[in-house]
Amino acid sequence: MGGGVPAVVLLSGGLDSATVLAIARSQGFECYALSVEYGQRHSAELDAARRVAKAGGARDHRVMHVDLAGIGGSALTDEAIAVPETPTSGIPVTYVPARNTMMLSLALGWAEVLDAHDVFVGVNSVDYSGYPDCRPEFIVAFEKLAAVATKAGVEGRPCHIRAPLINLSKAEIIREGTRLGVDYALTVSCYQADGAGRACGRCDSCRLRRAGFEAAGIADPTPYRAL
Amino acid sequence: MGGGVPAVVLLSGGLDSATVLAIARSQGFECYALSVEYGQRHSAELDAARRVAKAGGARDHRVMHVDLAGIGGSALTDEAIAVPETPTSGIPVTYVPARNTMMLSLALGWAEVLDAHDVFVGVNSVDYSGYPDCRPEFIVAFEKLAAVATKAGVEGRPCHIRAPLINLSKAEIIREGTRLGVDYALTVSCYQADGAGRACGRCDSCRLRRAGFEAAGIADPTPYRAL
Repeated sequence: MGGGVPAVVLLSGGLDSATVLAIARSQGFECYALSVEYGQRHSAELDAARRVAKAGGARDHRVMHVDLAGIGGSALTDEAIAVPETPTSGIPVTYVPARNTMMLSLALGWAEVLDAHDVFVGVNSVDYSGYPDCRPEFIVAFEKLAAVATKAGVEGRPCHIRAPLINLSKAEIIREGTRLGVDYALTVSCYQADGAGRACGRCDSCRLRRAGFEAAGIADPTPYRAL
Repeated sequence: MGGGVPAVVLLSGGLDSATVLAIARSQGFECYALSVEYGQRHSAELDAARRVAKAGGARDHRVMHVDLAGIGGSALTDEAIAVPETPTSGIPVTYVPARNTMMLSLALGWAEVLDAHDVFVGVNSVDYSGYPDCRPEFIVAFEKLAAVATKAGVEGRPCHIRAPLINLSKAEIIREGTRLGVDYALTVSCYQADGAGRACGRCDSCRLRRAGFEAAGIADPTPYRAL
């Protein structure tokens, strides 16, 4: 243990970021996991993030708090907006304004303090919910921003934003994580999980996850609650 | 009051952002002021921000909390790093990693919720401290990021990042603000102001401010504490 090149890994506690942590570790990075509590309803995710960070061999794990609930505008942070349980078209109400921009900026700040030049994020643009800040052009634009935004960038040590899942299907993500030994029973993807982390099985995130296990031909270890 | 095009204005409580609020108001914007409490030592700035928002006619003012102190790395957030009182070369220790990226991302999120397409920020690259995230290339890169990061951007209503001070000297900023009626006695720029908001007169920020009033030929209303 120890040694290795440091990297910050954004860790939500969901399936995708647990896989990203395993990928970063498999590439030899010493991983500093960062979770952001932004007033999301599904705080069971944070408990999951703590379990995943430990099981996944993160060197350190921090939870930062930002009160996005104060500005509202999303079903994930605003109690007054219901989480949809049937597919919708366009960008859904679970979209949190500028969420990934904010989370990557916090990761970028911590990376600079750690003298790390790699930030890993589990965004994915194949089996995803249509969020604009999960697309390749967003990652490219953020990396360009990082090069001019930080002291390290200006001094010629820019930060790379690594999104190893960006072009993988959910089934491919699950197969890769399974190969690397990720225990998906520890993860929570549901937008409205209960206090014990049990999933609803009906929200957009649950539907994508469930279909991914089916397509991968791997047994779904997700604890679903009785509905 | 009311009506007008909504805009988010980042308001630190310092001289520059107070001027930006006055400029945005003079251009007819309905201003939603946003202050970010990121664990900075100089919390007197936040009291100043509240006074400035009120005096400057902001429609609303919110303070968001982010615990950057948890990652350290700056004299402004880490008690273990002293604020320098003599000029230094290069990017100084008061630089807060990725600070403006984080603050703009929060402003961008609130703008999207408000359906605002303008974010004002008081960065300045003339009489400034050498921070990388105060330069024109940073603002340009953030605006490009915003265009692909948000639902509004993707739907053809991108957010403009307005930095009206970017090419002004401190003296020009002070003259413009004075012309618009800004009461600079309400503002706090000092990195180590005391609880009453009185300035040290010696840190980098105090030196720039003091020289600006001198160059503008305008009496400096800053309350300095006995040293």
